[in-house]
Amino acid sequence: MYPQQFELLIDELHRLPGIGGKSAERMAFAILEWDEESQNELIKALEGLKKLHHCKVCGNLTDQEECSICNNENRDHKTICVVSNIKDLFALENLDQYQGVYHVLGGVINIQKGVLPEDLNIDSLLDRVDDQTKEVILALDPTTEGELTAEYLTRLLKNKVSVTRLASGLPMGGKLDYADNRTLLRALEGRTKS
Amino acid sequence: MYPQQFELLIDELHRLPGIGGKSAERMAFAILEWDEESQNELIKALEGLKKLHHCKVCGNLTDQEECSICNNENRDHKTICVVSNIKDLFALENLDQYQGVYHVLGGVINIQKGVLPEDLNIDSLLDRVDDQTKEVILALDPTTEGELTAEYLTRLLKNKVSVTRLASGLPMGGKLDYADNRTLLRALEGRTKS
Repeated sequence: MYPQQFELLIDELHRLPGIGGKSAERMAFAILEWDEESQNELIKALEGLKKLHHCKVCGNLTDQEECSICNNENRDHKTICVVSNIKDLFALENLDQYQGVYHVLGGVINIQKGVLPEDLNIDSLLDRVDDQTKEVILALDPTTEGELTAEYLTRLLKNKVSVTRLASGLPMGGKLDYADNRTLLRALEGRTKS
Repeated sequence: MYPQQFELLIDELHRLPGIGGKSAERMAFAILEWDEESQNELIKALEGLKKLHHCKVCGNLTDQEECSICNNENRDHKTICVVSNIKDLFALENLDQYQGVYHVLGGVINIQKGVLPEDLNIDSLLDRVDDQTKEVILALDPTTEGELTAEYLTRLLKNKVSVTRLASGLPMGGKLDYADNRTLLRALEGRTKS
């Protein structure tokens, strides 16, 4: 019923997580009412996203070959914090407390959904861990799949390096990136030997 | 904390109505995980929006000079339905019942917000209404401002043409484009002389 171009935009916005038909429509009308400069800024921001890819060392987001954390000589490269995704990495970075580096798995083991260890960046983690590495912190969601993945990684790593996990303090069944900073900080400080 | 390009996209999405910081972040991550083709489709849809402008006759959205409704010879051009915005026009069009044409005011009179009659497409409405016009239907939100605008237009038009309003049936204080089809249809069928 709307002009074709407008329907197309509504359909595209409807594909975003948590955006229903009515919301997509409201968003499309809002964008329609923006001046051309504002519309162009949104388009430019989307174009900019294409310059981003994964850091070849840790899997973090970057527009360089290595991300700003791997590149930073002031960080403690002997401590590697393993996270399932980039969102969790940034949730930890926002604390401004952790000085080590990261490793992004790209998910957790989930047999039901067909995510197997070989689908995750586990080999590159094993390659990175050497005699210099002091500690691997497993910062995974305290869900069944997160726990399973943590146990799997612990088995692979515990003979080579000290492996710890985030302390309880994160509510079980919850999502790491939704925790408030205090809860997350307590979980980081109280991490236990795995 | 995120790469600059990514922060920029979150900021842009955050400007959309009903989208908080966390939602904008989730949406940005979702778009990041789309393949390049999907990202391009979204960009193309936004670019397509720029081709749309207002119909020179009624103010509806179109990529032509006149919209598909004004252009349609099978529509009843002697009946003009006045709506405050394009969303309301499409809510009525979706009923597949109304055969007349439209006139989009671009808002309603709102003294507190400084929207005066001269800020709306009222002059062009007066120009359109002639001896051929049989009826002007005022399909405005049943809010204080909508009622005020309807009364204002009635005063201007009632000596020239038959002026009607949508029937009660729309809950007072509500918004037209949120009504379900049955309520909206009843309101259209039961329109009363203004």
